[in-house]
Amino acid sequence: MPSAISLDQSSPSAHKTQTAITKGIKADLKSPTHALPKITKTAIVYCEGNFGAIDGKTANGLVRHSEKYKILSVIDSEKAGFDASMTLGDAPNGIPIYRDLAEALFFSENLPDYFIYGMAPSSGMLSAYERTLVIEAMSHGMNIVSGLHEFLNDDPIFAAACLTYDVTILDIRKPRDKKDLRMFSGAIAKVTCPRIAVLGTDCAIGKRTTATILTRALNEYGVKAVMVGTGQTGLIQGARYGIALDAVPSQFCCGELEATLVEAFEAESPDIIIVEGQGALSHPAFSTSSFILRGACPDGVVLQHAPGRINRCDFDQLPMPTPSREINLIETFADTKVIGLTINHENMSEAEVDAAIIHFENELAIPATDALTRSPDHLVEMVLTSFPHLRKKAVGITN
Amino acid sequence: MPSAISLDQSSPSAHKTQTAITKGIKADLKSPTHALPKITKTAIVYCEGNFGAIDGKTANGLVRHSEKYKILSVIDSEKAGFDASMTLGDAPNGIPIYRDLAEALFFSENLPDYFIYGMAPSSGMLSAYERTLVIEAMSHGMNIVSGLHEFLNDDPIFAAACLTYDVTILDIRKPRDKKDLRMFSGAIAKVTCPRIAVLGTDCAIGKRTTATILTRALNEYGVKAVMVGTGQTGLIQGARYGIALDAVPSQFCCGELEATLVEAFEAESPDIIIVEGQGALSHPAFSTSSFILRGACPDGVVLQHAPGRINRCDFDQLPMPTPSREINLIETFADTKVIGLTINHENMSEAEVDAAIIHFENELAIPATDALTRSPDHLVEMVLTSFPHLRKKAVGITN
Repeated sequence: MPSAISLDQSSPSAHKTQTAITKGIKADLKSPTHALPKITKTAIVYCEGNFGAIDGKTANGLVRHSEKYKILSVIDSEKAGFDASMTLGDAPNGIPIYRDLAEALFFSENLPDYFIYGMAPSSGMLSAYERTLVIEAMSHGMNIVSGLHEFLNDDPIFAAACLTYDVTILDIRKPRDKKDLRMFSGAIAKVTCPRIAVLGTDCAIGKRTTATILTRALNEYGVKAVMVGTGQTGLIQGARYGIALDAVPSQFCCGELEATLVEAFEAESPDIIIVEGQGALSHPAFSTSSFILRGACPDGVVLQHAPGRINRCDFDQLPMPTPSREINLIETFADTKVIGLTINHENMSEAEVDAAIIHFENELAIPATDALTRSPDHLVEMVLTSFPHLRKKAVGITN
Repeated sequence: MPSAISLDQSSPSAHKTQTAITKGIKADLKSPTHALPKITKTAIVYCEGNFGAIDGKTANGLVRHSEKYKILSVIDSEKAGFDASMTLGDAPNGIPIYRDLAEALFFSENLPDYFIYGMAPSSGMLSAYERTLVIEAMSHGMNIVSGLHEFLNDDPIFAAACLTYDVTILDIRKPRDKKDLRMFSGAIAKVTCPRIAVLGTDCAIGKRTTATILTRALNEYGVKAVMVGTGQTGLIQGARYGIALDAVPSQFCCGELEATLVEAFEAESPDIIIVEGQGALSHPAFSTSSFILRGACPDGVVLQHAPGRINRCDFDQLPMPTPSREINLIETFADTKVIGLTINHENMSEAEVDAAIIHFENELAIPATDALTRSPDHLVEMVLTSFPHLRKKAVGITN
């Protein structure tokens, strides 16, 4: 489909259309990693066979946005030689893709500080080959970042390798010790600023990306926004507040999220908190959003939807839900209101995105936009319309 | 409140009313532990300070129903000298309550095979005193059953005590190894018999008790029913199929439950599967029922409600939801139908239960009954009305 542009599931062919569409978006929104001078740690991201695909979403996300690590390169032999951002359909940002670890190290000026395992296989485990590769990276003196369900620090071989090579492993998904896990207590009532959750109609549909862009746009317009991450990719990207909810025993999911919001509120005194959603409330397998709605008690929800997606990305027998159906489910499940729709433009032309925005605004009677290709003004305005007391903090809204 | 009778939250004063109300219920429904000759393992249940209370729900449940262990006695110094079943407001069944472990052992003919930790503290952990007590029980040669979130087998001291005293610890809540946890796959489609989930409007409201009685009644009437437990109490009681969902990382909750139902179906070829619910779909802290609806894909739901309960049992600022509101939420959240209402008669007189049954049948247009005090015919009929193809298997239905 020559007119296709995509979000997390991009193909190289989508690049030209994407570049055309994104004209007019502020430059600093397109290259966030260059706008953050404080990053001193460097990293390479391993994503063999999966860069640009759904199971590579941690790598895809890091190439687009990383507050904690400067990403030097990506390893994926199938896409070696390409520019990583262009592979995602974004403007080039000079992150190359290499064939293997040796090539990535050969072209790196200094030894990278971190080797990031950038895939999210459904098994949640390393393969036998990957175990060897991680040990090899450690032997070079690189620290490891892993968002797997398998906790490498708990493995005697990796624990020994940490000692031998004097490096550390960050198991991003590991919850706190069981004795320290927190139950929902109602303490969320202390959080007196509005809370918005970015939910979606499917997995891997751009909730985290939209939440990141929304948070950044609000801050640029003078509204102090803090994002709370709920998945491993957001945490690896450097979200200061967050928890990998899918690794927490279900009894503690609401309480751990509630406590994270309270911490963020007390430490930052923000005007608003943006919470990254997970899966979809309607999803047959990944309904962790139920705990996000319970634990965060959001005052408003932004719903991310992909009109060009026919079936659920990991259940191709199941049709996508309609936004109106998902909104009814969300508003029945929780005492909240969906305040806007954001569109993932995968498999859509620019004209189709325009038409979809008009269609859904009419059908649902809420504002709609595409966070990646339309002005962030629309996203900010979506929030200010629902929370007008924040308008006095916002500067430079033009529409 | 002299007319009060209760389910899991009983007081001794409730006993007389309960005995009066339960006249006419089949004897084998009142004393299930005596109806199962195969039980050869004996156990004492530790429930200090909590027997009959909400945090003692594992002990309360075991005194009422245990397929795996013959319960010899309960330990609770505050209620020592009483009969355990009478303390719950049931007919006496000869299970005494003792002051401490020494007294329980003194009055036991033989060394009990198991020491069951019968409480569910919200911390999920043993206190310092309880650690010592468990070690003492092990030193006498008793095996340990624990449904705590803390896994005793993972503790070096308890692991050493197992070796020293040649005993075992069953950590009921421990999920399988992470590498063996299963994701939802859609395999539930292989389960071609109807599935009914027993959900509720609150925690600790009698979902497990109703599910147990319903399963037993269906079997007695010739409909082969298998119950799938989803909490630690049901598993300690001896449910052959089940999983402690609240201890499973949320990513795997749907899949683990789905796989458990498939196993039960393939091993037993039942006519129907009854799934124990957890918490309440509307609950602010315990909405694990979302995973039960997704993982089990029930064809029907029985909703347990306590009309005499004003506020949620663990959130006394929050009013109970109405059944109609909970039903709307359940039927919006999942493609299922609530086929009947079962009443927990706590804080209600017999006349009030009668009135509530009529009221809710009229309001909700579904059958209503009280599983503990009314004939099991009503429960069985509730199922047969919704699944008429099972009627040819049922014998002896009189109403």
